[in-house]
Amino acid sequence: MKKDLVPGTEFFIKQDRDSFSYGIDAILLSSFAKGKGRVLDLGTGTGIIPIRMAGIWNYDALYGVEIQKSVYELACENVITNNLEGKVKIINQDIKNLENVFEKSSFDVIVSNPPYMKADSAIVNDRENFAISRHEIKCTFEDIANVVGKLLKPKGKFYLIHRPNRLVDIFYFMRKNNIEPKRVRFIQPKQDKEANLVLVEGIRDGNIELRVEKPLIIYNDNNEYNDEIYELYKMKR
Amino acid sequence: MKKDLVPGTEFFIKQDRDSFSYGIDAILLSSFAKGKGRVLDLGTGTGIIPIRMAGIWNYDALYGVEIQKSVYELACENVITNNLEGKVKIINQDIKNLENVFEKSSFDVIVSNPPYMKADSAIVNDRENFAISRHEIKCTFEDIANVVGKLLKPKGKFYLIHRPNRLVDIFYFMRKNNIEPKRVRFIQPKQDKEANLVLVEGIRDGNIELRVEKPLIIYNDNNEYNDEIYELYKMKR
Repeated sequence: MKKDLVPGTEFFIKQDRDSFSYGIDAILLSSFAKGKGRVLDLGTGTGIIPIRMAGIWNYDALYGVEIQKSVYELACENVITNNLEGKVKIINQDIKNLENVFEKSSFDVIVSNPPYMKADSAIVNDRENFAISRHEIKCTFEDIANVVGKLLKPKGKFYLIHRPNRLVDIFYFMRKNNIEPKRVRFIQPKQDKEANLVLVEGIRDGNIELRVEKPLIIYNDNNEYNDEIYELYKMKR
Repeated sequence: MKKDLVPGTEFFIKQDRDSFSYGIDAILLSSFAKGKGRVLDLGTGTGIIPIRMAGIWNYDALYGVEIQKSVYELACENVITNNLEGKVKIINQDIKNLENVFEKSSFDVIVSNPPYMKADSAIVNDRENFAISRHEIKCTFEDIANVVGKLLKPKGKFYLIHRPNRLVDIFYFMRKNNIEPKRVRFIQPKQDKEANLVLVEGIRDGNIELRVEKPLIIYNDNNEYNDEIYELYKMKR
C-alpha cells in the first residue's frame, strides 16, 4: 500500500490503489463542501474527505463513518499519521444505525460520496470490500437521505457527489426527508461529452428553488486539466 | 396581430407579439417530442406546438388544451387557417378537469410548455391573459403531473420544457405520478452561461435510470445560432 499526498494540504493518506484509491470525486466533493462547525462524512472509506476538509476548511470537528472494519482501520491510521486525532474521528458503524450514535439535528454539514451503483445493476465483484464501496449493498441512497434528514440541524447543509443517472432518486428522497436540493453542478469530462458526475447541495427545510450552475469541464481540448481543476488540486487555505 | 411562419413547416400562426408570441421553448419542445399516435398538449396557447408537431412529425391526432377563452379562439383560428381541422383539435378546458374529457390511459404522448413561475413568485401582471400563461395561477406543475399520470398510456411518453430552478418539483411530482424521468437536456444560452431551460422526457411506469445529455448551447462565441439550433429552425419532414 502506498502513501499519497492529499491535494491542497500537507497531509498524506495510505490507500490501496486497486480498490480504495480516491478519485477526483473525493477532491470535488471536499472542495464543494465549504462550511464550519460539525461535519459528518457518510461512507468515509480511507478518510480522504474529512482529512482533506480538515486541511482546506475551518471545521471544528469532523466525523467519518465507515461500515467495513478493515477500511475503518485504514482510515484511523490515516488520521493518526497526520496528527488529526483532535479533530477527525472515524467511527465503525452502519449508517442505518447512526441515530443511535449521534444526537438528532446535531450536524451543521453532512457530506457523502456514496456507492454509485444499485446492488442489482452489476455482477457484484468477488472482492467484498470493493463491491461494498461501489454498490448499494449495505445502504441505498434512500437510507442516506433518511439519516441526513435526522442528523442535520435545521438549515444545515448536505453535500453529495453522485452519478447523474441517479438524480431522480437523489431529488426524490432528499425532498421526502426535508432536505431541499438547492444547487447542482454537473461535471463533464470534456466540453462535448455528457456529464458523468454531479455535485448536489441541499438545505434542511430549505425553500423550493434550485440553482443549476454551469457545468464543470474537467479536460480542455488539449486533454489538460482546465484551470478550475488545476486550482482545486493545488488549493490551500 | 401578425402572422408568423412556423419554423420547419409550411404553416403560419397568428399571435400577439407582446403576450403570446412563441419563444424558442416551443420550437425546442416540439422538436424534442418525436413520436406517433395520439398526442396531447397541455396549455397550448396559440396552438404553436400541436401545429408544428403536425408539420414535422407523423402523429395521427393532436389535441391542444387551453383554459383561456380568447386564447383558445386564437388557437382554433390558427388550426383552420392551416387546414389542420382533420388532425389538430383545440379544447377549451381546465387541465384539472381533463379526466372527465378524455379516457384514462388514452394518449401515446403528452407535451407541455407550462407556466414557469410560481404564482407567488412575482407580482402578477395586470394583463390577466399574460399572467395566466406565465404564472401558476390556474394550474401548478403538480396538477400537470397528476393529469399526465392519468391520461398517458403505460410506457407512453411525457415531454416537457421548463426552467431548471423547478427541476426538483418536476422530478418529484413526475415520480409520484408514475412518470419516471428518463432523459434531460439543459439549454445554455452560451457556453459559459448557466442553463435557463431544460427539456425533460418521462415514461409512464419507466424503470429508474436517468440520462443527462450534453447541454444544448444556443449561441456560439460570435453570437450566432449554433448549428443544432439552426437545423431546428429549418427542420422539415
